[in-house]
Amino acid sequence: MSQSDIGFKAALEEARKGADEGGVPIGACLVSADGKILGRGHNMRVQKNSPTIHAEISALENAGRLPASAYKDATMYTTLSPCDMCTGACILYKVRRVVLGENNTFVGGEAHLKERGVEVVNVRSEECEKLMTTFIKKHPEDWYEDIGEPSK
Amino acid sequence: MSQSDIGFKAALEEARKGADEGGVPIGACLVSADGKILGRGHNMRVQKNSPTIHAEISALENAGRLPASAYKDATMYTTLSPCDMCTGACILYKVRRVVLGENNTFVGGEAHLKERGVEVVNVRSEECEKLMTTFIKKHPEDWYEDIGEPSK
Repeated sequence: MSQSDIGFKAALEEARKGADEGGVPIGACLVSADGKILGRGHNMRVQKNSPTIHAEISALENAGRLPASAYKDATMYTTLSPCDMCTGACILYKVRRVVLGENNTFVGGEAHLKERGVEVVNVRSEECEKLMTTFIKKHPEDWYEDIGEPSK
Repeated sequence: MSQSDIGFKAALEEARKGADEGGVPIGACLVSADGKILGRGHNMRVQKNSPTIHAEISALENAGRLPASAYKDATMYTTLSPCDMCTGACILYKVRRVVLGENNTFVGGEAHLKERGVEVVNVRSEECEKLMTTFIKKHPEDWYEDIGEPSK
């Protein structure tokens, strides 16, 4: 698992798109067991005034309706440690592995994913972390709202 | 907590709407600490070809962008035991209580909610259960897809 994976690259492209749009810069990409991109997307809190379209939810939504078999052994790539909602979404659809860009700016449901048998890989991407630290500095109110925390 | 609560009534109305539309008949309603409906909605898998707009997600989405303080001591009413994704969404926004219509047709993340300090109340509604059993009998493939399970 490395930063050169097709899924990680797509997730990072999505995060950059989010940053360009002035949104929370988190991207995600769902890749099937045979290496095909099923869906990709980025956080839409700012762009669509949405409290639920986080990056992983966006990737799952853009993948469309799929039978359980399509998610079998799939990997969710995301540029940030997934929040509790996105953790739950990965568990619901029985994604086998979550590859995350970094967890220095935020730690989500990694422990719960592991408890539920999901492999978790952290690729420790400096670019993912930079996107987040830059955004949080500029728009702390948007960021804390996104994780359900009072603004600091 | 009873079936006459404003939030439970709204959730049940949403579930009935979903049934009328031919969709997965699950409704939800988010109510603030002071008893105001913040958002309500129903499962949109069939209607919008959506794998992520479950009832609770729909209620949160329809509530719009809110600061963390708005969710403080809020209650999520839902006509069915919440799946792992919706469980995670309630945890993310720190909903204090989840009131569910029934858990005979499906048991979701109730244990995880309790572990995370969320109160869980089951109102054991016969109508909620009837809506589900009728739907599952007619459209098992839609239902199992909704919970990420192979069709039985």
